[in-house]
Amino acid sequence: MMTIFSKTLLSAIESELKRQVARLDEPHTADYHEMLTYHMGWTGEGAGRKARGKRIRPFLLLLSAAASGGDWEKALPAAAAVELIHNFSLLHDDIQDKSETRRGRPTVWTRWGIAQAINAGDGLFISANLSMTGLKGSYPAEVILKVARILQENCLNLTRGQHLDIAYEKRPEIAIGDYWQMIAWKTAALLSAAAEMGSLLGGADEKLSFTYREFGHYLGLAFQVQDDILGIWGDEAQTGKSTASDLLEKKKSLPVLYGLAKNGKFAEMWREGTFKEEDIPEMGKLLEIDGTRLVVQEQADRMTDLALNALRTANPLGEAGDALFELAEGLLGREA
Amino acid sequence: MMTIFSKTLLSAIESELKRQVARLDEPHTADYHEMLTYHMGWTGEGAGRKARGKRIRPFLLLLSAAASGGDWEKALPAAAAVELIHNFSLLHDDIQDKSETRRGRPTVWTRWGIAQAINAGDGLFISANLSMTGLKGSYPAEVILKVARILQENCLNLTRGQHLDIAYEKRPEIAIGDYWQMIAWKTAALLSAAAEMGSLLGGADEKLSFTYREFGHYLGLAFQVQDDILGIWGDEAQTGKSTASDLLEKKKSLPVLYGLAKNGKFAEMWREGTFKEEDIPEMGKLLEIDGTRLVVQEQADRMTDLALNALRTANPLGEAGDALFELAEGLLGREA
Repeated sequence: MMTIFSKTLLSAIESELKRQVARLDEPHTADYHEMLTYHMGWTGEGAGRKARGKRIRPFLLLLSAAASGGDWEKALPAAAAVELIHNFSLLHDDIQDKSETRRGRPTVWTRWGIAQAINAGDGLFISANLSMTGLKGSYPAEVILKVARILQENCLNLTRGQHLDIAYEKRPEIAIGDYWQMIAWKTAALLSAAAEMGSLLGGADEKLSFTYREFGHYLGLAFQVQDDILGIWGDEAQTGKSTASDLLEKKKSLPVLYGLAKNGKFAEMWREGTFKEEDIPEMGKLLEIDGTRLVVQEQADRMTDLALNALRTANPLGEAGDALFELAEGLLGREA
Repeated sequence: MMTIFSKTLLSAIESELKRQVARLDEPHTADYHEMLTYHMGWTGEGAGRKARGKRIRPFLLLLSAAASGGDWEKALPAAAAVELIHNFSLLHDDIQDKSETRRGRPTVWTRWGIAQAINAGDGLFISANLSMTGLKGSYPAEVILKVARILQENCLNLTRGQHLDIAYEKRPEIAIGDYWQMIAWKTAALLSAAAEMGSLLGGADEKLSFTYREFGHYLGLAFQVQDDILGIWGDEAQTGKSTASDLLEKKKSLPVLYGLAKNGKFAEMWREGTFKEEDIPEMGKLLEIDGTRLVVQEQADRMTDLALNALRTANPLGEAGDALFELAEGLLGREA
């Protein structure tokens, strides 16, 4: 159940995002603007709530700001920035992965070609940077510089994770430690940045903002491991994507890595590599028999505990605080 | 003849660039780091001065800072930023144009694939943003925010120009006004940003920094028109690229657009579109007979005059001032 407070925030985020992207809404760059509004889920076939995603990162940023005692409205340009960065990375990721659809719609590169799609992704990134300049006047310049640096450092981490993800595709196997490093950068970095930036804009001191950062970090790790679990054993009707796809795409998710380490029947089938779609349910079962599902679920639970512990330590205030616990529990207990 | 002063600046730029890119110099991201150092011309086959380009933008920024009465050393992080942005755009441009070589070496995407190359370009952009944070401590936070905004606005312009460039490739013809809009964004934006940012970091007031911006803007326009002229009538031995390539690639350069407007023999051949490499010298001559070469040279001269007028108005100080005039005259009077 979403509260009126949460709805107000999400609606404000959407308006701010549109305002930021509207910089390109001019006759000469009308097509360019359309690529961005299409990708953001506002225009074109299939536009709407489902095409937009959950706006988790900007929501997390605003809640962290409010729960640290600040005014969430003043933090809106930073919230828009993290969401624009997230969407820049999705847009480039779709080209890199050759993904033809995202959230049930053709990706930007399949509609407008690779050249324009690379440029559209660049445009989203720059819009994020310009959005950050909108903090001016609401905060001391030193604070703006500090949160801007945190954002950029985590953007670099995002590309570090992306680099490893692409590189790992070509390796037959990777170590479990490599997996954690990759998801810390690729998935957790931006969530961690959102929580830390929000808390700083809310007036948190060094120590408190560090706790928010930890919260975002473990939230990201738990979220990714949970996602890996759903990618193999999830309910297709709820997740909206085939549970077969992660194994079929030979994604080196955590269950696969643990399964390989077991050196059992699953590892044998995986290394042979000749399995087909009809073999996937059996492979999922083999992983369960191995005990892999339990081990991975334990990891997810461990990260969830660390995230919730950090959040409790942060002691977030008011209805924003309640919403943060709800967000974390919703993300981590999710079945979809 | 390069003065000791200019050499000192260029050497400091190179060190600062290396320092910025070294963020990725860690075991997990060694390959990622190598892509950037290769692209920057420091490592790999063919590394060296020729592979690095002229570093015009950071040089312009530092000279503008010194010529406005400031300390150029303090401005180094901003200088590195504009060069990293330039290189980010080249790296993505090579993918977008499917260019297999740049400065005689294989491009990043031909060596490491499109997926990693997109990511490497993103990494250069983020390195530029992080470089900007290095201004902290040397300038008041308000000044840093101001120059950062100017940089990002011109980055967005860069992608506006890139968008048009890609879009125009598919159009049979474009208007001369569209050409000017495109090069203002694609070529002049970053030079204009470099000059404006430099002057502000040097202590220039609103009015003086505007004059520096104008200087960079017209310098960029003049440079691009000059480049178009060399692309058709240049001395191959001096430019290092085939003078046939611009016409063969059907690049909609300014001479071509004027030639098409003339509706003469050149326009006829162009629109037929069946010309081959052996026809190129004739087409260049047809354009000359049309009077197109003269008209385009007049445009280049007009932009050069506007650039030099702006520079004279700025009244740049000391040896940095002399070097700015030399840079402008070198770029615009160049035969290569």
